[in-house]
Amino acid sequence: MKKKLFDAIDSLAPSLADLFKTIAQRTSDGVGISRDAYGEVETAAGDILIRFAHDVGLDAGYDRVGNVNVAAKGRLAEPATILIGSHIDSVPRGGNYDGLAGVVAGIGALAALQKCGDGAAHGVHTLGFRGEESPWFGTAYLGSKLLTGQMSRAEAENLRRFDTKKTLAEHLRQLGVNLDDLGRPAIPLDKVRAYFELHIEQAPLLEDLGKPIGIATAVRGNIRYPFAKCFGRYAHSGAVPRHLRADALMATAKLIAYCDEIWHREIKAGHDDLVFTCGVFQTNSTEHSMTKVPGEISFTFNVGGINDEVMERFHREAMAKADALAKEHHVRFEFGTRVGTGAVGLDPGIAAALDGTAREAGIEAHRMPTVGHDAAMFVKRGTPAGIVLIRNANGSHNPAEHMEMDDFTVGLKVLTATVSDMTASRR
Amino acid sequence: MKKKLFDAIDSLAPSLADLFKTIAQRTSDGVGISRDAYGEVETAAGDILIRFAHDVGLDAGYDRVGNVNVAAKGRLAEPATILIGSHIDSVPRGGNYDGLAGVVAGIGALAALQKCGDGAAHGVHTLGFRGEESPWFGTAYLGSKLLTGQMSRAEAENLRRFDTKKTLAEHLRQLGVNLDDLGRPAIPLDKVRAYFELHIEQAPLLEDLGKPIGIATAVRGNIRYPFAKCFGRYAHSGAVPRHLRADALMATAKLIAYCDEIWHREIKAGHDDLVFTCGVFQTNSTEHSMTKVPGEISFTFNVGGINDEVMERFHREAMAKADALAKEHHVRFEFGTRVGTGAVGLDPGIAAALDGTAREAGIEAHRMPTVGHDAAMFVKRGTPAGIVLIRNANGSHNPAEHMEMDDFTVGLKVLTATVSDMTASRR
Repeated sequence: MKKKLFDAIDSLAPSLADLFKTIAQRTSDGVGISRDAYGEVETAAGDILIRFAHDVGLDAGYDRVGNVNVAAKGRLAEPATILIGSHIDSVPRGGNYDGLAGVVAGIGALAALQKCGDGAAHGVHTLGFRGEESPWFGTAYLGSKLLTGQMSRAEAENLRRFDTKKTLAEHLRQLGVNLDDLGRPAIPLDKVRAYFELHIEQAPLLEDLGKPIGIATAVRGNIRYPFAKCFGRYAHSGAVPRHLRADALMATAKLIAYCDEIWHREIKAGHDDLVFTCGVFQTNSTEHSMTKVPGEISFTFNVGGINDEVMERFHREAMAKADALAKEHHVRFEFGTRVGTGAVGLDPGIAAALDGTAREAGIEAHRMPTVGHDAAMFVKRGTPAGIVLIRNANGSHNPAEHMEMDDFTVGLKVLTATVSDMTASRR
Repeated sequence: MKKKLFDAIDSLAPSLADLFKTIAQRTSDGVGISRDAYGEVETAAGDILIRFAHDVGLDAGYDRVGNVNVAAKGRLAEPATILIGSHIDSVPRGGNYDGLAGVVAGIGALAALQKCGDGAAHGVHTLGFRGEESPWFGTAYLGSKLLTGQMSRAEAENLRRFDTKKTLAEHLRQLGVNLDDLGRPAIPLDKVRAYFELHIEQAPLLEDLGKPIGIATAVRGNIRYPFAKCFGRYAHSGAVPRHLRADALMATAKLIAYCDEIWHREIKAGHDDLVFTCGVFQTNSTEHSMTKVPGEISFTFNVGGINDEVMERFHREAMAKADALAKEHHVRFEFGTRVGTGAVGLDPGIAAALDGTAREAGIEAHRMPTVGHDAAMFVKRGTPAGIVLIRNANGSHNPAEHMEMDDFTVGLKVLTATVSDMTASRR
């Protein structure tokens, strides 16, 4: 069976490579890829995926909430027992593979399973979610939230796309979605035994390790302050002695430097999944100058990890340091609204199954935490989930994002064989 | 004589207060004061000063390089033996007193000395320099440099004002200055025995000490990098572990935090004149986001002090730390062009004379270092100089800059009486 499945995947591989190219050409913005959430270019990508699914003998269309839905011939209306999914949209000026790789993998898996016969594809549905990337509507996972009933009509009326200025509800209406159905799962989730997702890695860790694929152990949660501020007092850089300054920059720089100390300590204590990022740090350009003590800093604070307790400890220590620095430097920190999500555990059984399949095929996969993917929305609803990560030398969310088709094929084989084992156990 | 002089100053004080108000109204930008170097608003202030000088019976006009020049009646063409000066321009959106206070004081001193008769005003010239503030042309002391022959025509052709985009040479030509004369002193400097300057303090140190005036001991020099950069690599904040990051922000924040450590140590070792400021610190707003490891930081680096050796040691230690951080964080620092000036000593004899006059009048003045003023350009040319500082609760270079007229009058009396003693010794 495995041999037949792998041969089917190898023979599909060139057409899958072409599919990536076709979609890249249609959804290029001149510099990178821009598949806009619930917009025209995202729909164009969805249409190409549906056409391709038809061409390889599958059934496909859009589901009740606007996502691409693919199944074996004649099986589209049947409830799914196994889902394979990822998203169609990209960040603005992003790369071609973040999201799309998982949808193409799902269609490839279905085509290979169907080709092998024996009902291996029955009950398997592949989903291409819309709107997973947060830049468009300021929040993530829209397509999988709508499918799993985690987004109300009121919320959809409130979210507004940054560029079209239209609400998610307006975008959905334009796609023919009936808004009365929102807030309830669009499919019988209780029938779903597992959710699988293939995704390119968003960091160069696998590249660094020289491994083609990874198997995710958990989805990192985070604690974030998107609009933190520090207020001090502008003053003459040459004239004001240290003890009379209220230097907002110095206090904030020392806070960030201290966060690196906490981070270093936690890594040494074994929490090497922990990440800390200050991505934005700005003096006020209408006021700042080389010769002024800065009176105001805008910055972001972003801790991630797979262990909520460790993240909370990091947060607590950073806040205590901010209090101490505020006193020392006569400044005031205003962190603003705290946002973020808890860490999400992936199913150890599914991870072990993926790992076993990989080892059987002679592939050494790396177990590692990953970042937020649509999979997390299924875990939240109680569906066991597994994620296969594909090596990417250049990171994601940028036009240079890179995936070798050979690595993709390896990941697709591991994914498809694991799904096949699961459907076989049922057959 | 002192009694007569102080009475003359007291009777002048209300009209000097009005003069400050008139110039503030004419040169307001709606929020603060903007007297543009070698521009229309600066000239408007110069015109008001010249008119006022005429009104109180002095002779006044613009000198060969465009500065305001005031002397006793009929004495404008005579070479100066004592100069009182400061600048007319302000920083963009600055306050009314930084610079202007010293020019008004010089005119007030001349008027009081002339009123007392006995030739006390003879040989005393008051100068109102243009273009002392660096934001306009990216460099400071233009008016006093031109007067003392420290600016060539070629340099004037190269400096460009940030807003008008015109060169200093073009601005000078518009004011009728003959560019062929540049590079040579515009007055016989060898005849000048002393240069005096009154200036508001640019920090709230005197406010903190509860003293109305200060007497400067030295002008702080500085070592500056106006356009420093740190380059790392943008990456996904949630996916890339610490050891694979090239976080330009973290490296720079740690450098600034380390500079605070060096600073603290030097202060404890007695160098409490040392100041360090990072006034600008920016992630690149076209690329940055809360969820990206920052790949680029722009920042400024600015050390000041009265001891060149201490400043160099600070600089050396900071650069060594930058090298170490570049290795640790896989980033590259590019500091760009180093600029700055050495510390400038003021004349101990003049400082003692000012101090003596103050004590005689029952005023306790504080001896303290100050920042760059036009006085430094005269010291560089060998002219002994003294600076009287006036208490300012709110720092300078901002619209809230504050000077009590009572404090100004105290400073003006000390300045004028000291000048009178000096001219008396000659009479």
